[in-house]
Amino acid sequence: MEKILKEVLDTNRKYTNYGQVASYIPELKNARRDDLGICIVDKDNNIYKVGNCNTKFTIQSVSKTIVLAMALMDNEWTHVFSKVGMEPSGDPFNSIMKLETNDTKKPCNPMINAGAIVTTSLIKGSSFADKEERMLNFFRRLAKNDNIGINYDVYKSEKMSGDRNRAMAYLLKNDGFIQGNVEEVLDLYFKQCSIEIDAVDLARIGMNLASYGIDIENGERVMSERVSRMVKTFMMTCGMYDASGEFAIKVGIPAKSGVGGGIMASVPNRMGIGVYGPALDKKGNSIAGVKMLEDLSHRLNLNIF
Amino acid sequence: MEKILKEVLDTNRKYTNYGQVASYIPELKNARRDDLGICIVDKDNNIYKVGNCNTKFTIQSVSKTIVLAMALMDNEWTHVFSKVGMEPSGDPFNSIMKLETNDTKKPCNPMINAGAIVTTSLIKGSSFADKEERMLNFFRRLAKNDNIGINYDVYKSEKMSGDRNRAMAYLLKNDGFIQGNVEEVLDLYFKQCSIEIDAVDLARIGMNLASYGIDIENGERVMSERVSRMVKTFMMTCGMYDASGEFAIKVGIPAKSGVGGGIMASVPNRMGIGVYGPALDKKGNSIAGVKMLEDLSHRLNLNIF
Amino acid sequence: MEKILKEVLDTNRKYTNYGQVASYIPELKNARRDDLGICIVDKDNNIYKVGNCNTKFTIQSVSKTIVLAMALMDNEWTHVFSKVGMEPSGDPFNSIMKLETNDTKKPCNPMINAGAIVTTSLIKGSSFADKEERMLNFFRRLAKNDNIGINYDVYKSEKMSGDRNRAMAYLLKNDGFIQGNVEEVLDLYFKQCSIEIDAVDLARIGMNLASYGIDIENGERVMSERVSRMVKTFMMTCGMYDASGEFAIKVGIPAKSGVGGGIMASVPNRMGIGVYGPALDKKGNSIAGVKMLEDLSHRLNLNIF
Amino acid sequence: MEKILKEVLDTNRKYTNYGQVASYIPELKNARRDDLGICIVDKDNNIYKVGNCNTKFTIQSVSKTIVLAMALMDNEWTHVFSKVGMEPSGDPFNSIMKLETNDTKKPCNPMINAGAIVTTSLIKGSSFADKEERMLNFFRRLAKNDNIGINYDVYKSEKMSGDRNRAMAYLLKNDGFIQGNVEEVLDLYFKQCSIEIDAVDLARIGMNLASYGIDIENGERVMSERVSRMVKTFMMTCGMYDASGEFAIKVGIPAKSGVGGGIMASVPNRMGIGVYGPALDKKGNSIAGVKMLEDLSHRLNLNIF
Repeated sequence: MEKILKEVLDTNRKYTNYGQVASYIPELKNARRDDLGICIVDKDNNIYKVGNCNTKFTIQSVSKTIVLAMALMDNEWTHVFSKVGMEPSGDPFNSIMKLETNDTKKPCNPMINAGAIVTTSLIKGSSFADKEERMLNFFRRLAKNDNIGINYDVYKSEKMSGDRNRAMAYLLKNDGFIQGNVEEVLDLYFKQCSIEIDAVDLARIGMNLASYGIDIENGERVMSERVSRMVKTFMMTCGMYDASGEFAIKVGIPAKSGVGGGIMASVPNRMGIGVYGPALDKKGNSIAGVKMLEDLSHRLNLNIF
Repeated sequence: MEKILKEVLDTNRKYTNYGQVASYIPELKNARRDDLGICIVDKDNNIYKVGNCNTKFTIQSVSKTIVLAMALMDNEWTHVFSKVGMEPSGDPFNSIMKLETNDTKKPCNPMINAGAIVTTSLIKGSSFADKEERMLNFFRRLAKNDNIGINYDVYKSEKMSGDRNRAMAYLLKNDGFIQGNVEEVLDLYFKQCSIEIDAVDLARIGMNLASYGIDIENGERVMSERVSRMVKTFMMTCGMYDASGEFAIKVGIPAKSGVGGGIMASVPNRMGIGVYGPALDKKGNSIAGVKMLEDLSHRLNLNIF
Repeated sequence: MEKILKEVLDTNRKYTNYGQVASYIPELKNARRDDLGICIVDKDNNIYKVGNCNTKFTIQSVSKTIVLAMALMDNEWTHVFSKVGMEPSGDPFNSIMKLETNDTKKPCNPMINAGAIVTTSLIKGSSFADKEERMLNFFRRLAKNDNIGINYDVYKSEKMSGDRNRAMAYLLKNDGFIQGNVEEVLDLYFKQCSIEIDAVDLARIGMNLASYGIDIENGERVMSERVSRMVKTFMMTCGMYDASGEFAIKVGIPAKSGVGGGIMASVPNRMGIGVYGPALDKKGNSIAGVKMLEDLSHRLNLNIF
Repeated sequence: MEKILKEVLDTNRKYTNYGQVASYIPELKNARRDDLGICIVDKDNNIYKVGNCNTKFTIQSVSKTIVLAMALMDNEWTHVFSKVGMEPSGDPFNSIMKLETNDTKKPCNPMINAGAIVTTSLIKGSSFADKEERMLNFFRRLAKNDNIGINYDVYKSEKMSGDRNRAMAYLLKNDGFIQGNVEEVLDLYFKQCSIEIDAVDLARIGMNLASYGIDIENGERVMSERVSRMVKTFMMTCGMYDASGEFAIKVGIPAKSGVGGGIMASVPNRMGIGVYGPALDKKGNSIAGVKMLEDLSHRLNLNIF
């Protein structure tokens, strides 16, 4: 398997040249464009990794999957879906327009920013600090890594440059889709985006989803089967920004990407895959990462359709 | 003339029954639905008034005209129009969508909320308090009424319920159309909306525009001829929310309405007209006020086309 | 006056270099980019002209004003406005989107293509040939020129390349805004666009509107005062494509342009103005024509606001 | 298995009361609202059916899957996807707006009307009649039913009332996404929608997709594995109109519905499912059919995520 991964990485490394590192905040700009790594954790808990698998980076939008799981564990599902929809949007991740033109004005789904601001607001906790700690602990548990924490430089930059997300949040508040203090919700949202992980962490998270919510090491349930399926479904229909449809056609695996360069993929009943490659394509997905997953899907017959 | 005004008011009073008083904040809900008044100030400084012309109400969107004039007096015009457009939008006054779908992302014009937030941000002053004072003084000068002030209950309610405007402002900030502290800009915006005037004040303001910027009492210039023409043009093309086109066709006079029930109209070289009628139609215009102006336009041949 | 016109033309001729001749059909591409002419007919029937005032060109969208007048003369106004709106759209002339997102799905106004297809469908006649003849005769009467006819090469090209207008027409048919045979309506629409006129014809048409519908030579009424006012109002709010607002601000005269290079302007109670300048700006308006009208408006104080 | 199907049908029959039969053409209005049937063909070629499985109805939008397969078999994939996209749209099936606001103006995907008009235009044939025959034969082969034919009454009604699709087709032609004669393309499109099948036919078609393109009776390949996967992927991301996301979350099976009341579902490597239930929900999906599939997915553990 490691040989296959190595070939996949070597074959597709060239694509990093065609991508760009995210640059909307200075911290992301510092990433090395040609870094590339891929890690697999399979259901027998074997771990395979090649390339830059120990490089830390911020999770960014990949966190939307985990926060969605928490929202579904903390609330009645009907309540969650009264605040955020289930439909792919066909619009860019940070589009505001649909909040206005939709019949319901609800965010289309929890994988776009507006939807993730809603799911973030649904995380339960006795205090703001408690919510933050519960969130961090859930990330740590899924990744089986107690060292996971927040990159505070990224967090501060996100917060400072986050006026577009701020605009969305106030609109969501105005339309009744989030409650409470907007800046506090945004703070938690910016923090979740700034959690630092590596490709191995992502692979483990993906495996927890692939195993339908069972921790494969100790057999404990970390989320219900239904929640794990819902998360994977959203990853398939809208996990790769407005290239989700193309990714589903070409790769056919539930996956979620972030502008930090990470992709977390989950092949039901088989494996979790973590990718790191900060050179992004125009849609915001790791350009070589997508190519590696397409390649791997064909070699290992991972397409679920 | 007063006889004509009385007939116009009596004939059209019945329409107040078909309108609704604005209800998004409690203070506006308290208005009496059947109040109706109309005042004319002509270029010989004759003043004619019938009905509820001394009832105070908040100026709301009518202020957009005055703040536009200030923005044009305080800044280079090219600078102003690099931040806000000149085109009617065809969308509701509080639409956010066009900020995203427009090529420029600029607010379409200064008569919609997003555009007025921009013009508000362009008012000059050595401090926030100074901006507020300059603004208030300009309103007082145009209305020739030193007692004009802010209704603080309305202001507080606007501020508390203003999340949609807040969303717009953060988006404008994000896209570079406003500078500085968003909440401070919004504060001035909510204050200008909460200025309390009556129909006579509106008629005097309209006369100052009709006289191409000359105070007809003392011959002093309160704004340049060009600015007075620009304001009247925006009133014609987009002063009556998304019924501006219909109002232009049926009435043919530059006018600006507010959800407080006021309409300020300005017939070039002839007269200013102030209307008060808090029963609104579905577009947010004084329902009987529009009818009175249509009637008056035919009787006095005021249509400028 | 002719001296002024000559200065205006000489000063602004340079702008033709920054424009492009329309090229979507071969016939329009043949126009000479630096042609420029302007003609005034005033209310005493004086005629002043400089530059290329005898060059024939197709009227294109300028015809929308005349067809609107016919629709209003041939039908109850409430019927007309149940099929086409009165509001500026803020969208390009050939936009389809608003037909879908509007509450009413009605074309916003009669100056955009969709609206003009509606007004065309409202022209009365005992047969298709009769409608065409009535239309042509009305153009001839307004321009006082019996030689006005259709450029059949342009007509054929418009018809062949008219699939976007065809799409609109079928959508309008589907939504009940036009009746009868779609291809027949389109045929009349393409014919009206292909009528050949010159700048003098346009000035005379503009004068007929400026005189509130009275033929200034013989005192006959060619349309009602109300219709003449409505047409001028639509010219002001939406006559210059999606630069109508800017034109209103800078020039302040009701005007309608066409991609053939013509502009027909009408200064109420004063004059009609015809312009020919086939070099267009990005919005589709004669680039030097707009500049000449702006210049002329300042020199002769024609701004109606 | 038949017992399970019977229970599923009995439990969910009540939902037919909450749906409405399609009524935009008279022929569809004649369906019996409480008809309901479900058929499974599994990979061992066992066939299970309960309820109205022999009632014929028109395939409507379910045909989009088969025509997509043909387009992919008849053309280079890069050519197909230069004319139609891969992304879920988030808009109603007959939306025109996205054709204008999209960067590419391409139809978003082959499951909405605009996209299916494109794939229809890509079917190869020496003549129009040949295209029609090839299409019909492919439907017959997939359903293993030589009696499949066109319902000409439905076809004529579709054609007569098809002005919205006609509008789309002319826009697609204008923008270069379809070639050739628009009315001919539309004719083939209306014919494919009017093909008459029953629930058993749909189950067999679904099984051919589930078996990755192998005819399970005789082992012959009817389409390539890749094409079968692509079709199932589009079914998952956009097969159930603008409720596709919700269906994916709640049911988790690739499926395509039509307003005739049919749903064709395909569980990879397991079974094809055909549903008939003409009572539709507001999105246009068989209301009891969706409920039956949700129920069945839980009972048989068919969710692929």
